Amino acid sequence: MSATISPSNSSLLIGASWYPEMWSESEWPKDLAKMQEIGFNAVRLFEFAWKKFEPREGEFDFAWAIDLLDRCQEAGIRVMLGTPTAAPPAWLTTNYPEVLETKADGPVATHGKRKHYNHHSATYRHFCRKIVGEMARRLGGHPAVFSWQIDNEMSGFDYGEETRKAFHGWLEKRYGTVETLNETWGLNFWSQAYDRFDQVPLCTSEVGSVEVPERHHPSLIIAIARFQNDGWESFIRAQCEEIRQHSQAPITTNMTGYFGGMNWYQQNEVLDVAGYSMYADVDHYHYNLPRFDRMRRQKDRPFWLLETAPNWSGGGRQWNIHHDAGGVRAFSWLSYLLGGELILYWQWRSHWAGQEMLHGTHVTSAGNWAPNKDAWAQIAREGRELGPWLQENPPPKAEVGLLTSFEAGWGFSIDPVDTGMQYSHRIRDDFHAAFLENQLWRDIICSESAPLDSYKILFAPMLPSLSPKRVDELRAWVEKGGVLVTGPLTGYRTEEFTAHREQELGPLTELLGTDTELGFTVQWVEDRCRIVFSGEESYASRNWCVAFAEKEGVEVLARYEGGYGDGRAAVIAHSIGQGKVIALGGMLMEGGYATMARRFCEEAGVFPMGQANLRVMLIPRANAGGRVTGYGIVNLREEPSEVALDFAGTDAFSGEPWPGKKTLAPLQVLLLRADNPE
Amino acid sequence: MSATISPSNSSLLIGASWYPEMWSESEWPKDLAKMQEIGFNAVRLFEFAWKKFEPREGEFDFAWAIDLLDRCQEAGIRVMLGTPTAAPPAWLTTNYPEVLETKADGPVATHGKRKHYNHHSATYRHFCRKIVGEMARRLGGHPAVFSWQIDNEMSGFDYGEETRKAFHGWLEKRYGTVETLNETWGLNFWSQAYDRFDQVPLCTSEVGSVEVPERHHPSLIIAIARFQNDGWESFIRAQCEEIRQHSQAPITTNMTGYFGGMNWYQQNEVLDVAGYSMYADVDHYHYNLPRFDRMRRQKDRPFWLLETAPNWSGGGRQWNIHHDAGGVRAFSWLSYLLGGELILYWQWRSHWAGQEMLHGTHVTSAGNWAPNKDAWAQIAREGRELGPWLQENPPPKAEVGLLTSFEAGWGFSIDPVDTGMQYSHRIRDDFHAAFLENQLWRDIICSESAPLDSYKILFAPMLPSLSPKRVDELRAWVEKGGVLVTGPLTGYRTEEFTAHREQELGPLTELLGTDTELGFTVQWVEDRCRIVFSGEESYASRNWCVAFAEKEGVEVLARYEGGYGDGRAAVIAHSIGQGKVIALGGMLMEGGYATMARRFCEEAGVFPMGQANLRVMLIPRANAGGRVTGYGIVNLREEPSEVALDFAGTDAFSGEPWPGKKTLAPLQVLLLRADNPE
Amino acid sequence: MSATISPSNSSLLIGASWYPEMWSESEWPKDLAKMQEIGFNAVRLFEFAWKKFEPREGEFDFAWAIDLLDRCQEAGIRVMLGTPTAAPPAWLTTNYPEVLETKADGPVATHGKRKHYNHHSATYRHFCRKIVGEMARRLGGHPAVFSWQIDNEMSGFDYGEETRKAFHGWLEKRYGTVETLNETWGLNFWSQAYDRFDQVPLCTSEVGSVEVPERHHPSLIIAIARFQNDGWESFIRAQCEEIRQHSQAPITTNMTGYFGGMNWYQQNEVLDVAGYSMYADVDHYHYNLPRFDRMRRQKDRPFWLLETAPNWSGGGRQWNIHHDAGGVRAFSWLSYLLGGELILYWQWRSHWAGQEMLHGTHVTSAGNWAPNKDAWAQIAREGRELGPWLQENPPPKAEVGLLTSFEAGWGFSIDPVDTGMQYSHRIRDDFHAAFLENQLWRDIICSESAPLDSYKILFAPMLPSLSPKRVDELRAWVEKGGVLVTGPLTGYRTEEFTAHREQELGPLTELLGTDTELGFTVQWVEDRCRIVFSGEESYASRNWCVAFAEKEGVEVLARYEGGYGDGRAAVIAHSIGQGKVIALGGMLMEGGYATMARRFCEEAGVFPMGQANLRVMLIPRANAGGRVTGYGIVNLREEPSEVALDFAGTDAFSGEPWPGKKTLAPLQVLLLRADNPE
Repeated sequence: MSATISPSNSSLLIGASWYPEMWSESEWPKDLAKMQEIGFNAVRLFEFAWKKFEPREGEFDFAWAIDLLDRCQEAGIRVMLGTPTAAPPAWLTTNYPEVLETKADGPVATHGKRKHYNHHSATYRHFCRKIVGEMARRLGGHPAVFSWQIDNEMSGFDYGEETRKAFHGWLEKRYGTVETLNETWGLNFWSQAYDRFDQVPLCTSEVGSVEVPERHHPSLIIAIARFQNDGWESFIRAQCEEIRQHSQAPITTNMTGYFGGMNWYQQNEVLDVAGYSMYADVDHYHYNLPRFDRMRRQKDRPFWLLETAPNWSGGGRQWNIHHDAGGVRAFSWLSYLLGGELILYWQWRSHWAGQEMLHGTHVTSAGNWAPNKDAWAQIAREGRELGPWLQENPPPKAEVGLLTSFEAGWGFSIDPVDTGMQYSHRIRDDFHAAFLENQLWRDIICSESAPLDSYKILFAPMLPSLSPKRVDELRAWVEKGGVLVTGPLTGYRTEEFTAHREQELGPLTELLGTDTELGFTVQWVEDRCRIVFSGEESYASRNWCVAFAEKEGVEVLARYEGGYGDGRAAVIAHSIGQGKVIALGGMLMEGGYATMARRFCEEAGVFPMGQANLRVMLIPRANAGGRVTGYGIVNLREEPSEVALDFAGTDAFSGEPWPGKKTLAPLQVLLLRADNPE
Repeated sequence: MSATISPSNSSLLIGASWYPEMWSESEWPKDLAKMQEIGFNAVRLFEFAWKKFEPREGEFDFAWAIDLLDRCQEAGIRVMLGTPTAAPPAWLTTNYPEVLETKADGPVATHGKRKHYNHHSATYRHFCRKIVGEMARRLGGHPAVFSWQIDNEMSGFDYGEETRKAFHGWLEKRYGTVETLNETWGLNFWSQAYDRFDQVPLCTSEVGSVEVPERHHPSLIIAIARFQNDGWESFIRAQCEEIRQHSQAPITTNMTGYFGGMNWYQQNEVLDVAGYSMYADVDHYHYNLPRFDRMRRQKDRPFWLLETAPNWSGGGRQWNIHHDAGGVRAFSWLSYLLGGELILYWQWRSHWAGQEMLHGTHVTSAGNWAPNKDAWAQIAREGRELGPWLQENPPPKAEVGLLTSFEAGWGFSIDPVDTGMQYSHRIRDDFHAAFLENQLWRDIICSESAPLDSYKILFAPMLPSLSPKRVDELRAWVEKGGVLVTGPLTGYRTEEFTAHREQELGPLTELLGTDTELGFTVQWVEDRCRIVFSGEESYASRNWCVAFAEKEGVEVLARYEGGYGDGRAAVIAHSIGQGKVIALGGMLMEGGYATMARRFCEEAGVFPMGQANLRVMLIPRANAGGRVTGYGIVNLREEPSEVALDFAGTDAFSGEPWPGKKTLAPLQVLLLRADNPE
Repeated sequence: MSATISPSNSSLLIGASWYPEMWSESEWPKDLAKMQEIGFNAVRLFEFAWKKFEPREGEFDFAWAIDLLDRCQEAGIRVMLGTPTAAPPAWLTTNYPEVLETKADGPVATHGKRKHYNHHSATYRHFCRKIVGEMARRLGGHPAVFSWQIDNEMSGFDYGEETRKAFHGWLEKRYGTVETLNETWGLNFWSQAYDRFDQVPLCTSEVGSVEVPERHHPSLIIAIARFQNDGWESFIRAQCEEIRQHSQAPITTNMTGYFGGMNWYQQNEVLDVAGYSMYADVDHYHYNLPRFDRMRRQKDRPFWLLETAPNWSGGGRQWNIHHDAGGVRAFSWLSYLLGGELILYWQWRSHWAGQEMLHGTHVTSAGNWAPNKDAWAQIAREGRELGPWLQENPPPKAEVGLLTSFEAGWGFSIDPVDTGMQYSHRIRDDFHAAFLENQLWRDIICSESAPLDSYKILFAPMLPSLSPKRVDELRAWVEKGGVLVTGPLTGYRTEEFTAHREQELGPLTELLGTDTELGFTVQWVEDRCRIVFSGEESYASRNWCVAFAEKEGVEVLARYEGGYGDGRAAVIAHSIGQGKVIALGGMLMEGGYATMARRFCEEAGVFPMGQANLRVMLIPRANAGGRVTGYGIVNLREEPSEVALDFAGTDAFSGEPWPGKKTLAPLQVLLLRADNPE
């Protein structure tokens, strides 16, 4: 499952999701012809077609689907098969009501929506295995098929009785005895301690948003989130098992959101290709950049953009989030250039009924083209032409890594530490943006099991908990010469989201060579407290700061001035072996983080690629030998933007040589290819 | 039931709702004397008195009510009987709990409030028939009685088990087979298709507000709203049947809201007189104008204002929505002048206990006058004097009609198409206001069965669906010379709120002589796209636009400039027979709609009555022969306002001749009567 | 239980809440040593330790607690015992699920939170008596123990089935027959009348916030609030009975909130000492002043501040509500100076797990000091030194009283009379602030049974209902020379929250010598109506005004100008015996209330203590003979503030003589002691 989807196909894949089951067969050829007209070569099918496949329990009908695959094959359109489990048929939800989802506050989902099932339900999993297995057996070997998608935008936690029992079993498996649970979660106050696992409530655990709605014990909330994710993992794994018995095609799914309750890195481990549903608009393309930067590094192969808007998107009840021709092309190319190889727009032809009639499409329900047709055709044509070169020259691994974590996001949604604090926004706007601003090529690392060897410098802000194992790995990596920049708000929680009882920063203490001496909030008094670097520069901070004890071997890089911490160490450095650990006691506002990130990178031997506004993307591409052979450049602004990049190459789109410095038009895309590649 | 309420009574009716059951009999004469003191001649009684009429199941006591009617008769005060079904007694809600209302999310209403019943309940309807029948038999023939009101401000949908079953029966009756339902609603995706009617969920269907709270299938939501309205219709019809067995007096009810979930036009068909509860305040009198303009045309007779504030109103928990003497008089006269003949203020004497103690009244619970006494007496006196003339000179039918629809409002609350979009606000502020601004006399037409013959020009904005029958009628009317102005957002849905699959605009296509060529949102990019009329004028648009295909016989009146539709046809005209259809592809902002409305009217031979600010009402009155014999003028502003009106007449209030142009004082009311009526 | 806590202890008490049950025994000595280090001498223990005391039903373990008490005794730290009933153990909530709380909308509380019990539950009370009795028997006599706290921050109403039945019994006991209930609550309309008590619904009655969420009958809502409070009273009383069988130590509890649904004055009657949880921040110290002024007068002894922040507080999910060293010292001294003798900060050592890890503490979970250590030590040291003098010179009774009432707050949360109206805010910002602004020493009286003799002038604003008994007492007090200032919004409701039917102001009418002649809202038209005093001064009013009938013996002090009341009496005076009643028809905005309060006080012979900004507290202290022997002065502003006070004394903190006029530093605290005390 390495490299690209198929050696025989060297063009990039482009297409749309298509729901032919809503239309009479007579419409199918018209739609396929239209796809060919604009050069589309891929389509996603069947993800909601369970009722058509199994109209009555145990009665299957795949004839129509095989007919459709034949037509696709004939039209040169490759097919991603979607397993149809996001929408069970009415005979299943009626005859086996236990498969329906139970919300946190009690109500049970009704038929006629999507994702109204309980992913823990044994009954549901049984029927899912049956339909997916049957589908794999009948369709999996069809030559048109190049891949599978599991379900659709899976997410959500279930709170029904079967789930509650499963949770108690999960607890027992994890903690062994209830005494261990009580001790681990610190339940010896508020009379919280449990006598039996079955006393533990299944409280609301919708982590990942600003604040968990129900305020219950943090360790319990995290445990439930982990349990629900484990349930998703086995739900996905069951389908994969069925598919792999009959089909060799790689399996993906369309993850959604950002740092929500679904730990996509856990789920993606089971799958072959990392995929995403990502809707963007002209004002907020940069919101999506951290998603590409993190998706690129999960699998050792190009990622897939599984849903994005062909012209506009929105929640389904509005026509909105405008996205004109230039925007669609810039965003599509952004995806290819940052490491993607497939783009599926959502969706091909407007539903003629139902909840999503207003979504943007390629073709209206009456069969007319929707806006942006020329842009789609252009992207498809360019992808055909440039695909081979791009596949041979993928984006290289970065030397800078930003360590992030879903569970960190969960922790901050339990205890946001500040009004309206959202982990995903801070990562995007404070930390990832610092690299964009400096045009530092970077990877976002989203899993504690990701290897670290290739990085020269790692940044680890806002990670409440790091596992002892990861701390050991980081230490070994630093000893070999790495530079680790931790904080703010890193290391103050255990893996069970409790506080440390020996040292403030737990296992991190040894790495830092010191511990917190005083911790304090600066909320409401941001103007009284600054972090001052050797007399030259000073920055305000926010929400929470720690001052470090000054111990031998610890160099003080900055001190607090004013406030609780006045005069104490705010930023320190600690050398270990060939490397160094730098710890930030508080956030550096007023651009301080970007300035310091650049300085620390320079010290670690990592330098900016060029100069440009932070919304202009410079994207290196490298050959098999690791040499940089080109640059993608995308101006995501609606204004002209100047770019300075020292590179001898020629733009593949215009054929013009790169002058070293140039003002790009709004939403302009360049692909510079080296004049002397090797 | 034609014309006015009684030939013997030529003065306008004025009075209040009165709840004597809260007071000892010794207070009754004092209250009646106070009514006489200010010249009131009408009262509404008994609408919440069920428990007093039927203290125990099957035991009736009407003696006290007959005594009260006798006293009213003696005092010259005519009585509207309210059926008391809005508040069932405790023996009924306790012994037959199935009569209680079930909310969408499950909770069942409790005793002690109002409208806590399920209007579908067979048990409840049984008891309603009994109490109403008994009441009609005992009180219906009393000489003081001049009319009936059914229940009180009926509204709301029920979601209980009995209702759910009734809904399944309703579906079966409408669609015959579940296959037809599946096909009609397009359920062949998302596995939505049903195997049996009893699988269809009774999802939340609170249409009419900004957004339906539950997002379910649009066709299902609309079906439930229709079903719930049919239930209301039969609930009302049952009471009317009981009444009509014993009483000849006309029946009304106090409709509320604007374009909410209750289709009042459907309900009013069963009744004799259109009535309204309408609370207004000095800052927002104009909010109510569309309600008068539409109420006037439902029945071929004057309407009734059944509740309005004597000084202030509010939600019952505050003294608010201030309404001083000038305001009360202006609003009361506005109602008479726009076509009313009865005003009942709410309410006579402050409740001395309960949920609504703070509401404005005429008399406090301790028996003192509340503010505005002189104004009420003045309105009553003026009504007595001017009543005969007004009854002989009602407002004429307009030549301009604005087509609206409750179901259109439902559609936009399912798919609002824009952030915060509310159909009722757009009708009021964009479309109806265009006629006010131009002082064009207009009717609001609110039912697809209303006749069209009398109109010269019709406007049909924001009607997602028009029935094929109505389209045929419109075509016939255009052929005979009518001018129809359709759009924006008209005709893009079927009657089942699905999209058309053959042509974008379904049956409207033929009427327009063309179809949509490209549709696009302009949300967020309003500044990039304008609609330009032959070089002179251009207007921005909003949310959604369509460009029309340019076919033979279609004249292009305006084109898009910029944006997706650049250069394409935005406004077109298509001649049919003697008439013409004009279609707007998008909304004309920046006053464009008012400008065009006036121009199209002029072309259709309809001209402004005069010139005045849009919050100054010019209201024609005409004699039996159709000749305009006078004008009401009401300045709803709190500032002086200039009025220019070419009419030879004398103001009935001041006796001053009309100078043709005059500055009216804030809230001033004039009634110009022709100097030479015939 | 009179005077101070113990003759043997003449220093003020200071300490924290401590939860040693979360920690291993080896940590206890470290914590105690730290307490000693900063001079703490008190601690609150065990309030959530039920599970540790009774790990299984009927099995008790107090050995660990006795060990802990011994250690405290040895360390010179006195102990407040908290009864642990706020958090029942899991065996209780699991085996007797009827003890769990049922919310107004149905859901039942889950284990693992706090206060998840039903305070009406007979089962729960049985187990509470057992644990509390056992605790009293085993720990109550320990020499370290100086006091008890019942439960923790009790509050909340239960809506379960057992509660509903108890409510019906409560109704029967109060009203005797359902006919009396129907008549008293005016249920003869809307068919509200009940046939049996068990038909009465237990509607939502969460009074005290801006608006009661469910709009039901006001008399029912108030009845439920009274019933729920009676349930709390007997819940508390049961625990007191158990304690008093074994312990002589005074009992308190930590009341919370302001004028919420819990009638703390009722509850405190059962207890010995008035106590409060009061969290403050530097920007809002003055918010808490009315609480101290009212707490001081409930018991004839010093009050206890049972919880306050050592550095910051917040809802548990944030580090916020900043409170630096100066702020903590100013607020702590404010509490001592205004009449307190004990301060317990919340809490000693950060929980290492659970819902409140982020709260401010003295010591982190890892055992390090949190910010403000020096300030705590300073406060403790100062308290030791000044304690004896302060105990001999408490704050004297005031001559000015502000009458307030929990039930008044409930009434305004049922009918807020104005948008966003909150009784507690109006008392604080309009009425109490008028005394602060004038530096008039005042008591807040919060109970109808409080004696009035010591006051020269009483203010009674916004009391919808005064009992006939209280009106009689007020009359007797006025006759002997008192000056009573009533209104606005006083006396318009009966004790059952119905309107009066004979006179607008019920029993108050006779006291005023007249009645309301016209009542009216001024909402939205505040600019049209002013209250004018004898030509010189005039003030706008707000929401609701009444004009008084001009009768003999009634002096008109001010009249309305403009609006409904134009020319009528707005403020009147009526002499009775030696005294006088002044009635305000409406609120005096624009500082009018403060101006008039000062003028009326001067007429009553009460004068300002000095001059200073309203956020600078002047606090008299007096000796046993009633002579003022000193002044506390606290500048609650973060700016320098000038104080003028005519007093010959010396500041106990600095040793500097008081110059009569001085500019205080931000948050500066003075304690002036008379140079010639006798």
